[in-house]
Amino acid sequence: MGNMRRLVAYYPKVKRKKTRVVYVGQVAIGGENPIRVQSMTSTPTWQIKETLSQIERLYQAGCELVRVAIPDEKSVLALKEIVKESPIPVIADLHFAGTLGFKALEQGVQGLRINPGTFKDRSKLDDLIRACKERRVCVRIGINAGSLEPEILERFKYPSPSAMVESAVRWVEYIVEKHDYYNLKVSLKSSNWWHTVKAYQLFARRSDFPLHVGVTEAGGLIPGTVKNTLALGYLFLKGIGDTIRVSLTADPVEEVYVAYEILRNLGLRTLYPEVIACPTCGRCEIDLMPLYQKVVEWARNIKANLKLAVMGCVVNGPGEARLADLGIAGGKGVGIIFREGKIIKKVKEEDLLKAFFEEVERFLQDHPERFIT
Amino acid sequence: MGNMRRLVAYYPKVKRKKTRVVYVGQVAIGGENPIRVQSMTSTPTWQIKETLSQIERLYQAGCELVRVAIPDEKSVLALKEIVKESPIPVIADLHFAGTLGFKALEQGVQGLRINPGTFKDRSKLDDLIRACKERRVCVRIGINAGSLEPEILERFKYPSPSAMVESAVRWVEYIVEKHDYYNLKVSLKSSNWWHTVKAYQLFARRSDFPLHVGVTEAGGLIPGTVKNTLALGYLFLKGIGDTIRVSLTADPVEEVYVAYEILRNLGLRTLYPEVIACPTCGRCEIDLMPLYQKVVEWARNIKANLKLAVMGCVVNGPGEARLADLGIAGGKGVGIIFREGKIIKKVKEEDLLKAFFEEVERFLQDHPERFIT
Repeated sequence: MGNMRRLVAYYPKVKRKKTRVVYVGQVAIGGENPIRVQSMTSTPTWQIKETLSQIERLYQAGCELVRVAIPDEKSVLALKEIVKESPIPVIADLHFAGTLGFKALEQGVQGLRINPGTFKDRSKLDDLIRACKERRVCVRIGINAGSLEPEILERFKYPSPSAMVESAVRWVEYIVEKHDYYNLKVSLKSSNWWHTVKAYQLFARRSDFPLHVGVTEAGGLIPGTVKNTLALGYLFLKGIGDTIRVSLTADPVEEVYVAYEILRNLGLRTLYPEVIACPTCGRCEIDLMPLYQKVVEWARNIKANLKLAVMGCVVNGPGEARLADLGIAGGKGVGIIFREGKIIKKVKEEDLLKAFFEEVERFLQDHPERFIT
Repeated sequence: MGNMRRLVAYYPKVKRKKTRVVYVGQVAIGGENPIRVQSMTSTPTWQIKETLSQIERLYQAGCELVRVAIPDEKSVLALKEIVKESPIPVIADLHFAGTLGFKALEQGVQGLRINPGTFKDRSKLDDLIRACKERRVCVRIGINAGSLEPEILERFKYPSPSAMVESAVRWVEYIVEKHDYYNLKVSLKSSNWWHTVKAYQLFARRSDFPLHVGVTEAGGLIPGTVKNTLALGYLFLKGIGDTIRVSLTADPVEEVYVAYEILRNLGLRTLYPEVIACPTCGRCEIDLMPLYQKVVEWARNIKANLKLAVMGCVVNGPGEARLADLGIAGGKGVGIIFREGKIIKKVKEEDLLKAFFEEVERFLQDHPERFIT
């Protein structure tokens, strides 16, 4: 059944909108580059060791760009070492105007996120953009429904998608015209996923700058994953989005996993195997959840495009999961391993995982084209 | 800002496809009825106490229909008491043909899920449908890409969306024509969300029977939530789907929460308040995650349409979350409570939750229209 897959499109067709290419450090964003996955640290930035260790975990999970908050001087001063040690480019998040942005640039950050609406003094903004241009630092114009500039809010009466787009277009044009600077990307975030979608769609019609897509204040693991998936799924199907930050009130590493799950299911990027599993029911003869979890964690380190299955029932498992490349099903002390719907091995339950991982490795030897390079 | 919301559509427009109305017990499905949320127990069905306690938890979370597996005789015999004590209608999941289906009907189940492709003996199916008709038991024709009947698989070579639809149409027509029985609903599930979507879309063009929508073997909490949200979000935006089962390798109660998060974000159903929260960053001055979790758990018992915010920073919180009806932000021992973007109270951090809940209740006294009845 394995190679029958090609007869039917496994993913929706996505035609990506063409955007300019910009760079955060060595990482190219936009154009035909892969949709880049980013996240933000939740540690106090001045705690250098903790921050670097979180960045390392994010990097291991597949994160390609990392943002850090710089609420104060001591956080900014930590940036030099963070930038030096980080395996991925570092973006400083400048929440309010002031001198912190300049200092962050001096520390060597590769990107800066600004919210121009919060700059009361236009000349400060000009100076900052000049400094970014000198250092070729990528600037994200980060529009947020919750912090639009007063003029826009007054005109639109409400932080609607049109108001957000008006603000974004205005700042992009200003920076391009006044400063002749193009190393820009744009985000337009609301905590309402539908407003977020509408804002990005409207903006994409008016500009070809690459888009950092995401919903803001999405909430915890479940509500946040639902909201982000709705918004990002919708936008990607329309071809919109060049870099993705899933925002969750949770360990930021989860943001990276959610991002890749969304990208994988749209056929846009695969980093590690898909693991399907039955939801367990009264038929289940094995403690499925820990078994599933072990397979998922192991699989995250296998850089290959595979579909693995973990099933709770020896009778139905192999048939129901025949679209998987390989799978296991367990019950009453015995486990089976199947490959493309056919049972290839019966083992004692305690040997199941080890034997399964060996079979996956054997499959990959037979199918080296499945490795992701 | 609160009542400005009405100026901009907060949710996408969804025009539901008209389907027939069917009944599982007293619960009407299809037509203009709310999209019904269901789940499936994961306890061994013969463990009556454990199963009923899981059903109670599902019911408390908003589950309206529950399915149980009947892999063996002792599970079937447990049904009488389960049906009698369950606060919601019980559907028996008949995986293979045989006498278990008849026995389940005798125990009083209000619904039966069958997979006609697994019936080798047509007369057994006929007898079972007759028995369902006599008892007015709703039948779900549950097509699964992993268990299509051999004739269909041979003809289509692959369990494609078209093959699944062909199988479903065939069985619906058979039951309608031969048995003049219409208390039917249909599902067409694959572990690939895009195939699932395509199958439902094709079927909906050919039939007006109500649809039970869901992805099968979706995986654990994160990958499963992503897959279900992509598929169900897509289908609901097209107006397709009358009852929903989110399938997760996790506690089934999570399936119900995910279901309502999807429905809420599409403007289709709200059961309890939305809680937005910042993702925490190096600016965060409070231990946000446990605070957020407490608000979420409290809010699940408030049957009202509200948007609450939990923010990690006193300076930016109220502004960024001004679209929320009420919110809290904390930092350095002090917490603030804001209502429609305006700070209304400053309290000691340890009194924050209690004071916040009181303010929510006060808000609801001023806005009784927000209660969900």
